[in-house]
Amino acid sequence: MQSKKRVSIADIARQLNISVTTVSFILNGKAKEMRISDALTKKVEDLVQQTNYQPNVLAKSFRTGKTNTIGLLVEDISNPFFAHIARQIEDNAYQRGYKIIYGSTEDNLEKTRELITMFADRHVDGYIITAPEGIDNEVKDLLEMKKPVILFDRYYPGLETNYIGVDNYKGTYDGIVHLIENGYKNIVLVTTTSQQSQMTERQAGYHMALDQYGLESYTHKIAYVDKQSAVVKKQIADFMSAQPQTDAVFFATNYLLACGLEVFKQIGLKVGEDVAVVSFDDHEFFGLFTPSITAVAQPVQDIAHQAINLLLNELQPTGAPSQKKFIQLPAHLVVRESSAAKRRGA
Amino acid sequence: MQSKKRVSIADIARQLNISVTTVSFILNGKAKEMRISDALTKKVEDLVQQTNYQPNVLAKSFRTGKTNTIGLLVEDISNPFFAHIARQIEDNAYQRGYKIIYGSTEDNLEKTRELITMFADRHVDGYIITAPEGIDNEVKDLLEMKKPVILFDRYYPGLETNYIGVDNYKGTYDGIVHLIENGYKNIVLVTTTSQQSQMTERQAGYHMALDQYGLESYTHKIAYVDKQSAVVKKQIADFMSAQPQTDAVFFATNYLLACGLEVFKQIGLKVGEDVAVVSFDDHEFFGLFTPSITAVAQPVQDIAHQAINLLLNELQPTGAPSQKKFIQLPAHLVVRESSAAKRRGA
Repeated sequence: MQSKKRVSIADIARQLNISVTTVSFILNGKAKEMRISDALTKKVEDLVQQTNYQPNVLAKSFRTGKTNTIGLLVEDISNPFFAHIARQIEDNAYQRGYKIIYGSTEDNLEKTRELITMFADRHVDGYIITAPEGIDNEVKDLLEMKKPVILFDRYYPGLETNYIGVDNYKGTYDGIVHLIENGYKNIVLVTTTSQQSQMTERQAGYHMALDQYGLESYTHKIAYVDKQSAVVKKQIADFMSAQPQTDAVFFATNYLLACGLEVFKQIGLKVGEDVAVVSFDDHEFFGLFTPSITAVAQPVQDIAHQAINLLLNELQPTGAPSQKKFIQLPAHLVVRESSAAKRRGA
Repeated sequence: MQSKKRVSIADIARQLNISVTTVSFILNGKAKEMRISDALTKKVEDLVQQTNYQPNVLAKSFRTGKTNTIGLLVEDISNPFFAHIARQIEDNAYQRGYKIIYGSTEDNLEKTRELITMFADRHVDGYIITAPEGIDNEVKDLLEMKKPVILFDRYYPGLETNYIGVDNYKGTYDGIVHLIENGYKNIVLVTTTSQQSQMTERQAGYHMALDQYGLESYTHKIAYVDKQSAVVKKQIADFMSAQPQTDAVFFATNYLLACGLEVFKQIGLKVGEDVAVVSFDDHEFFGLFTPSITAVAQPVQDIAHQAINLLLNELQPTGAPSQKKFIQLPAHLVVRESSAAKRRGA
């Protein structure tokens, strides 16, 4: 805790009868450079300790332009995947002396622009962003202003930025191959209409696996109508009744899975018996479902750790412009009961 | 987005050949007060618009001491309850021009102190805190420094602060009465050893209901050993084998419920048949469990809305010291299958 009345640099200067500038040089480690005597340096340091002087961080930020704050933009902090990533980013940042200012973009262009402006006004040192479609220009502007930016979860093909994410293509491919090898033949992908990279990659992984095994694909794209689950559920129900031969469903997000499970319950389809299920993104409760839910898990800790590492690397003044890094970590298939081998005759 | 080279107040002053102070007075709405002519005021305002001048927020913060930033301390941002609260607080704050800096306390005293110091150094305008045991003095210090502080989720009996939370006592009481009325007689409360108000209130609600119906209580307190679920699960398993007559369990948190369900699965106890279950705090997936899980739901939106309202009220300079408000909102029992009426003979 700070003491109730802050001791200022001016107080210290007055007490020792020296100038504020001299105190400031000493506190900023420039005593030698400025040829200030060791004796005076020690006097100031001792008084600083006695008076429990604490630098005025806001004033210092104003002088140095550094705030030790990172702006974190996620799609939605209440989504378990982003909540866990945010927590891990926070832990990593905290250990290295940084604080997080955050905002949820809701994948809304206007809100994202406002948040980036707010963060810029608050002089954050760098940005970690899950970018909605269409803010490539804003990201480009930040890069031109030499602001460190790390994109995560999705990237803009064609825009050279630092990026950390998961191999959505291979993750989905593995999930679909797992279903095929367990005997499923009419496999549906339920996904969103988003053209963001993570979603198009999941779609590509689905098609690749089916093509390889010579199976037909039944991609079912769903428009998120402002996350109105009633609309999503109706679309899934309509699709299932139009395609009754469906024996397995891969849900491209947790949210779609939740909608799907509710629909299956309503129309009396038994998961693991009538229809196999795999979800992209794991969840702490999936092991407790009956049957437990097979999922493609993202390495949340690793993603957060590397995001902070990339950002802090960018914040080191090296002189040379840094090479942008594009990192894709492997996703991991967690096999549970909902995708068990298809029974003969079923 | 800000333009690539910021236009400063000095640029505007130079261009119009007037002083920086005059520009500053006009921009801060003090033209009339300072007897600056309407003509000059209009000239400055027009130029500000043409040049897309944006105030340097950091410099302004330094002058005014206001940062339009709120420090939010939750126990753990990755916990679904806190993630949802944080999202709602963010939405409410954003609509009213405030940003959030956040931190997860992990209920750790030392980390909480460091975070409060960090927030103070960053000159946040106010604090919203889920307080771990033992930081009453730090909260008292903030109050003495006239910093607006809102506690939520738990409070310090005896310390007069603004508080917003749920009626944990009545919420738990309702859940236990529901179990009793459905025929259960050997009802266990699985809770933590925490002496925080929200936990002691839940315990009191449990005892009150059992006393009222003349039933015996089997409170089983569990120490969170740094959230090591293996330890928690072992304790629940040991208790269940020592008290085989147990026919219902009320879990005081989601986390304990998840541990409990795993134990029941391992030892072959069927939820809804062998043992009824109720959880404090609802979860979006509880309706999808088999059986679906009965829960005491907190009004997350209301809590967040009122927390921001209380804080913004405190930030209005009224002259008179404001009356501290203590608000308890009702929790709501969501009845699902896991607590269905006990079968005869079971």
